[in-house]
Amino acid sequence: MYSSKKLKEFTQNVFQKIGCPADEASLAAEVLVSADLRGVDSHGVARLSGYVRLWEANRLNATPNIKVTHHTPSTAVIDGDKGLGLVVGPKAMEIAIEKAKEVGSGWVSVKNSNHFGIAGYHSLLAVQNDMIGISMTNASPLVAPTFAKERMLGTNPIAVGIPAGEQPPFVADLATTTAANGKLEILQRKGEDTPEGWVQDKDGHPITDAHGVKKGGALLPLGSDREHGSHKGYCLGSVVDIFSAVLSGASYGPWAPPFVSFLPLADNMPGEGLGHFFGAMRIDGFRPKEEFKQHMDNWITRFRNTEPVSKDQKVLIPGDPEREMEQQRLNEGIPLHESVVKDLTELAQKLELEF
Amino acid sequence: MYSSKKLKEFTQNVFQKIGCPADEASLAAEVLVSADLRGVDSHGVARLSGYVRLWEANRLNATPNIKVTHHTPSTAVIDGDKGLGLVVGPKAMEIAIEKAKEVGSGWVSVKNSNHFGIAGYHSLLAVQNDMIGISMTNASPLVAPTFAKERMLGTNPIAVGIPAGEQPPFVADLATTTAANGKLEILQRKGEDTPEGWVQDKDGHPITDAHGVKKGGALLPLGSDREHGSHKGYCLGSVVDIFSAVLSGASYGPWAPPFVSFLPLADNMPGEGLGHFFGAMRIDGFRPKEEFKQHMDNWITRFRNTEPVSKDQKVLIPGDPEREMEQQRLNEGIPLHESVVKDLTELAQKLELEF
Repeated sequence: MYSSKKLKEFTQNVFQKIGCPADEASLAAEVLVSADLRGVDSHGVARLSGYVRLWEANRLNATPNIKVTHHTPSTAVIDGDKGLGLVVGPKAMEIAIEKAKEVGSGWVSVKNSNHFGIAGYHSLLAVQNDMIGISMTNASPLVAPTFAKERMLGTNPIAVGIPAGEQPPFVADLATTTAANGKLEILQRKGEDTPEGWVQDKDGHPITDAHGVKKGGALLPLGSDREHGSHKGYCLGSVVDIFSAVLSGASYGPWAPPFVSFLPLADNMPGEGLGHFFGAMRIDGFRPKEEFKQHMDNWITRFRNTEPVSKDQKVLIPGDPEREMEQQRLNEGIPLHESVVKDLTELAQKLELEF
Repeated sequence: MYSSKKLKEFTQNVFQKIGCPADEASLAAEVLVSADLRGVDSHGVARLSGYVRLWEANRLNATPNIKVTHHTPSTAVIDGDKGLGLVVGPKAMEIAIEKAKEVGSGWVSVKNSNHFGIAGYHSLLAVQNDMIGISMTNASPLVAPTFAKERMLGTNPIAVGIPAGEQPPFVADLATTTAANGKLEILQRKGEDTPEGWVQDKDGHPITDAHGVKKGGALLPLGSDREHGSHKGYCLGSVVDIFSAVLSGASYGPWAPPFVSFLPLADNMPGEGLGHFFGAMRIDGFRPKEEFKQHMDNWITRFRNTEPVSKDQKVLIPGDPEREMEQQRLNEGIPLHESVVKDLTELAQKLELEF
């Protein structure tokens, strides 16, 4: 077990070592380790050496000049200047929040960024300000649209955070695919197959090989196949791609830059870097916030008390599992898979740091 | 075959007969028949007598005083005064569009309304103004959350319309369930079973009975079951419920008022009527609109040319099937099922109109 405090320190040290200013390295570490705390292990320190490799490949700028390039009172585009998505993301959400304070809501599309960690983290920044927070990002193309052989979209997550009163906030954070890539990684480590409907092979045929995507296959949009609504998952992933990248001027669809540095960038990229999209809406832009929070408490309580199908199940509120995991891991520490420990140990040696 | 012009005239006459002003009756007819034109037969004139029954039950106000009750420069809440959702919807979107003209984006949550037709219609109003349009609504509770026996949510659709240049606009319009209720109605008429993963019975067990929902069962969230991501469909349906109804002060979750007048309203409704949510974002709030449109054309063309799994399939752009259907039905007329013809004929007799 590793304490989140120690993991954050190490992560901050790594980012400082590649040249990030101390405050940005600290912010990036906070965002990255929040994934480990919330149980999204695929998006936490397991990715740390990947960011370093992006920096080594000159695809990541440790000292970016993050700036607004276009704006109205409620909208903006931000150029992330190839900075860490873990830093660009929170700064963009901060601008959305400032706009919401002024005119009720703020909407920020970001270009020239890269992987921003877990979408849920960013939406919660708005929730802390009594706002609804929305966060999404495009990502490395791994997903085939309905009827398609080719990988055209990323797992393109959407997060929505909504404040409540006595109850903890509602936090939906979902990849627009049937299963996120992290779920495949867990099965790969266990040597198990996937359920049907998660993956197809390079010819577009359904398979259950957890390594199928690495072999040229693709993840499937939420819904799995046409009969079960995969065209809806494809629609949602497309909306995320367009809001994050076409609106901002980032690279979109099959041209989205891959996170892994060993894959080359596409020829003729139609935009700059990866894109994100953030929204913040002030609750009291719609109704008095205490009134809203009472009704959210009522909503949450009613849904939590929904009669379950079987007695050993309970109906969950979006955000429940991650919050319970966070509490547990704050108390007991974060378990890391041996391959991650090995990776971080090697990273520490390379950068002459202690892990 | 029935011409859309004739169906609109008849629909307008019906709404005028129950007391709607001519301009609002005309608008409502336009919205309702747009569903028949776009091939969403369940949401078109098949529902006309249902609106009349709501009016007979005193749940619908033919002469509403639709007004803004709360606002900031980019947000508002609108009280629909129990008016036709078919009229309240476009008026609310118009306010979102006006706000977007002023400050870049506009976001309007609506209470005290009822069924607003197809979500896609409203999002296209923004598209006509070079804006991205978003439209959603809560609806009669028919959907069980993951692990639940009870019906807690509606099919809660989300529509997103995005303008392009040479290409037609991107229009995603999707229920947040595996299958919309209209799909069940088609199977009921044919006497066929549903695929697995669409419906559960009153005890929460998976069934394929197309009449299952009427027998106390429930529709399933997009994803069908936990293993295939139904918790994501449940998240999305919940977000639609909260944006449409908790934010506005409408009735939410299991208390959402049913469309059919023979079902009683819930006791202790926590809000007024049904809720909707609309958004409009000016393209040039983010980047010059001609530049955006060129990239949308590029996006659409690239996705349309995605290599399909088999030669007899093609990868579609959201909005393609509905637009093709609209063209065909404008030319050839709209086919109505004999049960709908019978229903409209009886309605005409009752209201002393000609059908």
